[in-house]
Amino acid sequence: MKILVTGGGGFVGARLARELLKKGQLAGQPLTELAIADLFPPPADLAADPRVRAHTGPLLEQGALFASGFDGVFHLASAVSGECELDFDLGLRSNLDSTRALLEGLRRAGNAPRLVFASSVAVFGPDAGNPMPERVSDTTLPSPQTSYGTHKLMCEYLIADYTRKGFVDGRSARLMTVTVRPGRPNGAASSFFSGIIREPLAGETAICPVDPEVSHPVSSPATTVRGLIAVYEASREALGGRLALNLPALNVRVGEMLQALEEVAGHHVLQRVRFERDERIAGIVAGWARGASYERALALGLRPDASFKAIVEQYIADCREQPGYPAEALRGLDG
Amino acid sequence: MKILVTGGGGFVGARLARELLKKGQLAGQPLTELAIADLFPPPADLAADPRVRAHTGPLLEQGALFASGFDGVFHLASAVSGECELDFDLGLRSNLDSTRALLEGLRRAGNAPRLVFASSVAVFGPDAGNPMPERVSDTTLPSPQTSYGTHKLMCEYLIADYTRKGFVDGRSARLMTVTVRPGRPNGAASSFFSGIIREPLAGETAICPVDPEVSHPVSSPATTVRGLIAVYEASREALGGRLALNLPALNVRVGEMLQALEEVAGHHVLQRVRFERDERIAGIVAGWARGASYERALALGLRPDASFKAIVEQYIADCREQPGYPAEALRGLDG
Repeated sequence: MKILVTGGGGFVGARLARELLKKGQLAGQPLTELAIADLFPPPADLAADPRVRAHTGPLLEQGALFASGFDGVFHLASAVSGECELDFDLGLRSNLDSTRALLEGLRRAGNAPRLVFASSVAVFGPDAGNPMPERVSDTTLPSPQTSYGTHKLMCEYLIADYTRKGFVDGRSARLMTVTVRPGRPNGAASSFFSGIIREPLAGETAICPVDPEVSHPVSSPATTVRGLIAVYEASREALGGRLALNLPALNVRVGEMLQALEEVAGHHVLQRVRFERDERIAGIVAGWARGASYERALALGLRPDASFKAIVEQYIADCREQPGYPAEALRGLDG
Repeated sequence: MKILVTGGGGFVGARLARELLKKGQLAGQPLTELAIADLFPPPADLAADPRVRAHTGPLLEQGALFASGFDGVFHLASAVSGECELDFDLGLRSNLDSTRALLEGLRRAGNAPRLVFASSVAVFGPDAGNPMPERVSDTTLPSPQTSYGTHKLMCEYLIADYTRKGFVDGRSARLMTVTVRPGRPNGAASSFFSGIIREPLAGETAICPVDPEVSHPVSSPATTVRGLIAVYEASREALGGRLALNLPALNVRVGEMLQALEEVAGHHVLQRVRFERDERIAGIVAGWARGASYERALALGLRPDASFKAIVEQYIADCREQPGYPAEALRGLDG
């Protein structure tokens, strides 16, 4: 079967592509071709796999590719939250118009391919008339407070309509904040959820811009990828209702994250974290979900990460084994 | 002040335009110019008013008009439900792309005009995982089952984001099914909600394609127009929360509608209605809200029509007084 991963050059997308190649099949069908469409070329290990075809450039220009007859698609490509707030037009183009181009191509192909859209817990937000529950659920009324969350939600509904018409077999998996991400801080307001673990492990100081009491729904990269694949492989019946659902979340306070870091890496690592409240970031984070429930993902057999300690341990193991993790990532681990 | 009404050539839009011209002001500001943008030219009585400027043609080509500095906009132009189901691309173009063209023009003007978007109770629908309540409310999770409802909902969220960014001062009023509409059946599945009253009054036979027990949220043209104006004039604080809200609904069964027709017009008129179940239409209607609540509209001082009898009486009075109602509309009233 031919599978397309958009955003396959990115962190989660590349990890998903690796997992698909390793698995070698999807829903029982052997994987013969994996197309990766992204603004940037895929990492070298992916590009080297004979099953991989890289299509590098703006998604808006890939109409012919999208119509070329894929059996399944994972649509992860997206401008991130911070970019969309800085450049409104870029956000609409990258997130809404590109998704429409993809949907139109898949419709033109005529084979109603299966499509998993990477939506986000950012579709939820506070609103005066209808305060956010302690945990946002599959049936919480979305109220996005960012352009990014708005576009994700609009695409969820558009994909549901393309599915109702029989043009695709779509479903939307709402990703939680993925942590621990490798690499550098990326300027997103949520960047510190990775930074407060990653930087101390690399021997660097990290600033935590919010109070230790702040709670947030997170997921490790491995658990996130597992969720995307399970949502792809689920039958429409097993999905049980609406086409958008929350992926599993570990609902965890910042203080608990740091406690897990100390348990795994030691007090000398924890000491590299400094609390320095940033009103701008704290304000943005205050508008986010403090936790999420995920009843329908549970029914698909999915589970959240067992603990934040397990997430830190996964990151350390990834640094030792996975491509894309810099060599110096664990420089700060030894006292 | 300069006001724009899109869809001002249509039935509700023209009635709104008439009401605005009669009122002569909006939120305390005198109305100096009323632009009407529609595929079709406005009715003669509107075109004759010196304050009216008609802009006839596709909305997608009116970018310069939209950017010309309006103080306020009522956005009613839309392909209707039936059209969107028949022509998917037309629906996206007329409802989503045209709204984006409007929003971009208003943003370019730079004066953050007030915008009332005519959304619809069609944003709600049944869904396996989350059955529709007996009455859909301001906080019911939308689940549109038509492309029309999907586009309306997507535009609600897009307008909320343009508002959050300060590009417009937007709000979305969800219209109930407007009845009694003058003229001919329009092929929409909801058309019979007007036809079973209008045709018998004109001396013609009407087919009722659903059971008398079917319940539906409706609103008279006058009440609908009053709601649109009130949502325009409300302060953001008075709106109290989310930018989308239900307009008032009279929740009424088909049997009650016909009973009202008999009370107002007599048994000889009622006898022109024949029940002849149409499985296709009955199936579509079964997917619609059976009723709606409207807490926030109530808080704005809005009220639904007092009774369906009052709606029938309004239609008869309209036939005698309002432009756009054909002369033969009440031909069947006298025994």
